[in-house]
Amino acid sequence: MKKLLIISLCLVFAAIAINGAYAQFAKPEYAIKYRKAVMFLIAQHFGRMGAMVKEKVPYNQEVFAKNAMLVQTLSRLPWEAAMVPGTDSGDTTLNSEVFMKPAEFKEISQDFETQTAKLVSLAQSGDFTATKSQFGEVGKSCKACHTQFRTK
Amino acid sequence: MKKLLIISLCLVFAAIAINGAYAQFAKPEYAIKYRKAVMFLIAQHFGRMGAMVKEKVPYNQEVFAKNAMLVQTLSRLPWEAAMVPGTDSGDTTLNSEVFMKPAEFKEISQDFETQTAKLVSLAQSGDFTATKSQFGEVGKSCKACHTQFRTK
Repeated sequence: MKKLLIISLCLVFAAIAINGAYAQFAKPEYAIKYRKAVMFLIAQHFGRMGAMVKEKVPYNQEVFAKNAMLVQTLSRLPWEAAMVPGTDSGDTTLNSEVFMKPAEFKEISQDFETQTAKLVSLAQSGDFTATKSQFGEVGKSCKACHTQFRTK
Repeated sequence: MKKLLIISLCLVFAAIAINGAYAQFAKPEYAIKYRKAVMFLIAQHFGRMGAMVKEKVPYNQEVFAKNAMLVQTLSRLPWEAAMVPGTDSGDTTLNSEVFMKPAEFKEISQDFETQTAKLVSLAQSGDFTATKSQFGEVGKSCKACHTQFRTK
């Protein structure tokens, strides 16, 4: 009986802790909308760098670095919103695997932040060859996460 | 005839310049989606600060300052997307006045950036009373723009 009480109390505290962590979003739909907004902005600014990498527009170090810095800032945002329970259904492509493999998800999301930070350093250094190569690494990091944790 | 040629050439160059400025967006809908994404993120992070200002959650200087810095970064983004011709119709609340009063729009948008930058400085200083007051100024700046340049 005592064990049951302890387990119950643990569950209550865990529920409170989870609520606290995700209380940032007034509704679960907002968490979905939030991460979709972040991902759309990342894609837009990644695309602007991509146009330079593919030489569709002339390389401009300052503009490239600004885009990289913005993507770095955005790279830190979506993870908290991805862990909100119940947000793997609705207007989302989040794969439920996120909730089953939180450690893998954390690792893969942190890799994206790391690769993006490296891109900022190289973009600021002005070494376009190294920057292009690192841009490819960021792209691989995106893909690794999408393959495992996105439904389509 | 010569005058007509000069005018025509000017129009061509103006068209190229406009295209260049807005070439960031593959489709006009992306400009709408872009500014909506930015505005949603600003609202979310402004709301997190607001919860502290209204004492719904305890004041945490570090968290407040992080939110303020993020809003400052985001404050620079939506204007370019708002000036894309034709994006005052569709899934948007942009008021066509933006295209008729570009100077007023620029001034009002720059005021938002200025007020947000001040909020960051005060948040970092740790003076919560001054921070709360400046938070109100940022809110007024949001409202001034929405009143004139948003349809609802």
